[in-house]
Amino acid sequence: MSNLTDFFDSKTNISKLRQLAQDFVDERDWNRYHNPKDLAISIAIEAAELMELFQWIEQKEVEKMMEDDDKLLRIKEELADVMILCLNMVNTLKIDLSQAIVEKIEKNKAKYPAELVKGNYRKYTQLKG
Amino acid sequence: MSNLTDFFDSKTNISKLRQLAQDFVDERDWNRYHNPKDLAISIAIEAAELMELFQWIEQKEVEKMMEDDDKLLRIKEELADVMILCLNMVNTLKIDLSQAIVEKIEKNKAKYPAELVKGNYRKYTQLKG
Amino acid sequence: MSNLTDFFDSKTNISKLRQLAQDFVDERDWNRYHNPKDLAISIAIEAAELMELFQWIEQKEVEKMMEDDDKLLRIKEELADVMILCLNMVNTLKIDLSQAIVEKIEKNKAKYPAELVKGNYRKYTQLKG
Amino acid sequence: MSNLTDFFDSKTNISKLRQLAQDFVDERDWNRYHNPKDLAISIAIEAAELMELFQWIEQKEVEKMMEDDDKLLRIKEELADVMILCLNMVNTLKIDLSQAIVEKIEKNKAKYPAELVKGNYRKYTQLKG
Repeated sequence: MSNLTDFFDSKTNISKLRQLAQDFVDERDWNRYHNPKDLAISIAIEAAELMELFQWIEQKEVEKMMEDDDKLLRIKEELADVMILCLNMVNTLKIDLSQAIVEKIEKNKAKYPAELVKGNYRKYTQLKG
Repeated sequence: MSNLTDFFDSKTNISKLRQLAQDFVDERDWNRYHNPKDLAISIAIEAAELMELFQWIEQKEVEKMMEDDDKLLRIKEELADVMILCLNMVNTLKIDLSQAIVEKIEKNKAKYPAELVKGNYRKYTQLKG
Repeated sequence: MSNLTDFFDSKTNISKLRQLAQDFVDERDWNRYHNPKDLAISIAIEAAELMELFQWIEQKEVEKMMEDDDKLLRIKEELADVMILCLNMVNTLKIDLSQAIVEKIEKNKAKYPAELVKGNYRKYTQLKG
Repeated sequence: MSNLTDFFDSKTNISKLRQLAQDFVDERDWNRYHNPKDLAISIAIEAAELMELFQWIEQKEVEKMMEDDDKLLRIKEELADVMILCLNMVNTLKIDLSQAIVEKIEKNKAKYPAELVKGNYRKYTQLKG
């Protein structure tokens, strides 16, 4: 594979990340497990593992966690696991991730007009409901 | 913003997607809600909404869903919501997502050696355990 | 069915609640969907819907929610949905829920000795880890 | 506490189970962590741990799991953890669990009329939507 130092958000295109995720799956012959339903289940499981790092943690403790390198590394790793599984699902669905995100942000802009929900989660929750 | 047609996986880098996600939050003045704990909760909620599209659906029905444009669009949208929230969390944590993904894939390679888990989820589950 | 006013925690046993849940499923001929995997998925989806009621809600707002009858009703209903699905799973697995709970509490007592974790979630998290 | 053999679904009333769950919390001085938002998070985390037992498992393997005593025990334990946390939330909210379940089943009956959804999850999903 390419040198790891080649991968930075400012210069990595999504296709390269998708390929890294696909290579991992190919090398393990796991494609047959990667149907959309089981991938959705796995994304939810990994999301819960990320959330578990904050279980019973009070808000002021959360801020302290951000200054603790070990905790930050664990958060980064669990978040990466969620994203890797999302890349797997994108690969299985054969969709363009960038287009999916751009289109959904446009849709969210229409659903949650800035002037209506500015600084106010309650308005957001009502519109969502 | 740039023309939407500029965004394709083959030429979009992560920084550009992160910026789109951040602009949406800035325009709504929602940064103060975006602490890591509440973002982790929201990622888990969106992951469950993605999973809900497959609730009670038998495997053979899942395959049919892939040929149904409406269902595929809903899956794409819910998956995009999960990823947008991941981008929000990456922005809050001020980490490099590409590096996080590359490093986690390397770690997963060491944890699940290809020759040991090839084509076999049970071995994977045991190692995960 | 029995009069609704017969059902109170102080005099209702689990078997009666299990039967109510089973009757609902039988009347809809849904038993064939109720395999353990799909039930686990549905429990996770309902748990996320319960959690969604607290999405982006700050701690001090959570306390205010407890004085709002409408919000309390929604929390109660979503919590009930989680528990009804747990009863469905208990019915599918044909296990005794009371025994399962009592045995797990005994196991948790051994895993989290009171004198070690008293008033301290961090110790709990470490032991859990 | 009472003898463990006293606890069976056919004779255990809910109040006794609630008391067992409360005693565990009291002995550890954990009441101050048990606010509704953090309990909802924990229910979702435990639900994901239950679901994880079925991660990547094909339907025909799920049936085999039911004949494997070790796997059945793990499922029972994770399901018990979800239910114990639900009991904790019921205790925090000071509501009557039996009434909550009975009332929600009645509401679900009105929402999903048997004659409309009989044997058909798609109708259910549409009504849910």
